[in-house]
Amino acid sequence: MAAASDSSCKVALCQMTVVEDKATNIAHAREMVKRAVDSGAALVVLPEVFNGPYDTTKFASFAEPVPEVGGAVDEAASPTLAMLAATAKEHGVFLVGGSVAELGQPASEGAAPAVFNTCTVWSPAGELIAKHRKMHLFDIDVPGRITFKESDSLTAGSGLAAFDTPFGRVGVGICYDLRFPQLSALLRHKEDCSVLVFPGAFNTTTGPAHWELLLRARALDNQVFVCACSPARNPDAGYQAYGHSMVVDPWGAVVATTEHDEAIVLADMNVPRAAEVRTNIPISKQVRTDLYTDVEWKGPGRA
Amino acid sequence: MAAASDSSCKVALCQMTVVEDKATNIAHAREMVKRAVDSGAALVVLPEVFNGPYDTTKFASFAEPVPEVGGAVDEAASPTLAMLAATAKEHGVFLVGGSVAELGQPASEGAAPAVFNTCTVWSPAGELIAKHRKMHLFDIDVPGRITFKESDSLTAGSGLAAFDTPFGRVGVGICYDLRFPQLSALLRHKEDCSVLVFPGAFNTTTGPAHWELLLRARALDNQVFVCACSPARNPDAGYQAYGHSMVVDPWGAVVATTEHDEAIVLADMNVPRAAEVRTNIPISKQVRTDLYTDVEWKGPGRA
Repeated sequence: MAAASDSSCKVALCQMTVVEDKATNIAHAREMVKRAVDSGAALVVLPEVFNGPYDTTKFASFAEPVPEVGGAVDEAASPTLAMLAATAKEHGVFLVGGSVAELGQPASEGAAPAVFNTCTVWSPAGELIAKHRKMHLFDIDVPGRITFKESDSLTAGSGLAAFDTPFGRVGVGICYDLRFPQLSALLRHKEDCSVLVFPGAFNTTTGPAHWELLLRARALDNQVFVCACSPARNPDAGYQAYGHSMVVDPWGAVVATTEHDEAIVLADMNVPRAAEVRTNIPISKQVRTDLYTDVEWKGPGRA
Repeated sequence: MAAASDSSCKVALCQMTVVEDKATNIAHAREMVKRAVDSGAALVVLPEVFNGPYDTTKFASFAEPVPEVGGAVDEAASPTLAMLAATAKEHGVFLVGGSVAELGQPASEGAAPAVFNTCTVWSPAGELIAKHRKMHLFDIDVPGRITFKESDSLTAGSGLAAFDTPFGRVGVGICYDLRFPQLSALLRHKEDCSVLVFPGAFNTTTGPAHWELLLRARALDNQVFVCACSPARNPDAGYQAYGHSMVVDPWGAVVATTEHDEAIVLADMNVPRAAEVRTNIPISKQVRTDLYTDVEWKGPGRA
């Protein structure tokens, strides 16, 4: 289903319950995307690590090869990606495929394959149009509350990812990337995005404290829409996701959200609102680059 | 009154009502600082433009010369500063003197004197230890709600200001400077501050939408305490201040605040909490400066 106009877009965040079984997760994601499309969504977002448990000891066993942008999916090796490509094409929507553990190349001969936490984005024609490997790995230690170390089993990415749509350019980050204002600023200023999408799985400690704050801050500071999609909380899971998938507008206001149960969060994004806010409060013209250098990209091209 | 220990500090934000008469404002500020000290404060903060109305047509007539850091106050020409110096010394406290219109030098021969919006900071010995000229002028246009153009009558500053205390290093910005994450990042990373202080006068449009969000975002992203002091709302004034002076901790939590009436907001800042949060969520070590350059200062030394 196409956007109602070139400037507005209905987005759907599929806050799905993720279980241990990969085939169940794939089928469930497919079904939630269909429901989102039935509600009129032209941009559909799945959560971080939606095809298996969020568990450093299990990422490798759920990992799939991910082609480069524009490449073809190996359907036997990458059943999750095959579903995403087919589902985007079947419904003719832009699909931000949350993230999956990506089976990469070994860093050196004889080493284990590198595993990335990777977001794939699919066009209405079912093509892979963007790919983001989580750039900032989630290593935190709040004693007695939450300790997690993604870097035990994951490798960080090194590229910026963005894609064009009829309603504006969209940038992608994943979860802990949110804590680094540099990434959002680069997506806004280098990539000229009006919408940022973050699959993410905050927890019950950092979620209540920081999830909404970070999403609203990135939206306001960059005068962009921010869409963040979490898994639902699964009481049986080892990692308790915060939920609260959320759409924030460029004024920093929460447009739509939910609590921690499974839900589809829907919002109409009037993307020209970003340009209006940038005129009202023209911070991007008032920035004092005569006094300080701003964040600048020096990494490779898009991954 | 000294801080109870070298690591914690009671801060007081004097959310004072500002009227048209300068002498009245000076006397009222002196009295509020005394009350703050009586409550145990070792760091006292006054609001932005506390000695006269917040009005671009009136800044020049309230302006006073401000010496360089370490310089002596001309008591006849600068009665507001004379009060600040004497009051800090009388009570033996660190006093962030909100801001005043500063009468500067003309930009060129024959031109009118430049006027800055300037925060002065006074040591417990009554010495001028830091001076910040608002770096980002408040020029916004939200049609039908709030239009303001400080640059009609003010000149922007070009320096970073910070000062040492027994409880940690403190950086200073003013109001609209809050909208530029670059300044807070520089105060955190170049100046190594653990506390940021912002005299500020948001309004009834941007205040409810953005004041708390910006303060909490700067605190969380930089893992610092943020203290922001507004004037009280004066129904007779042309510019309606938002109030809601606020202290936020390095976890991004609001520690103390108030509504829009005159009040003194008190909070105990346990400054080592900043180091603890930086250990829990070590973003400053995880930043990907291999991929992007971060904000860097290229301006002059401290003003």
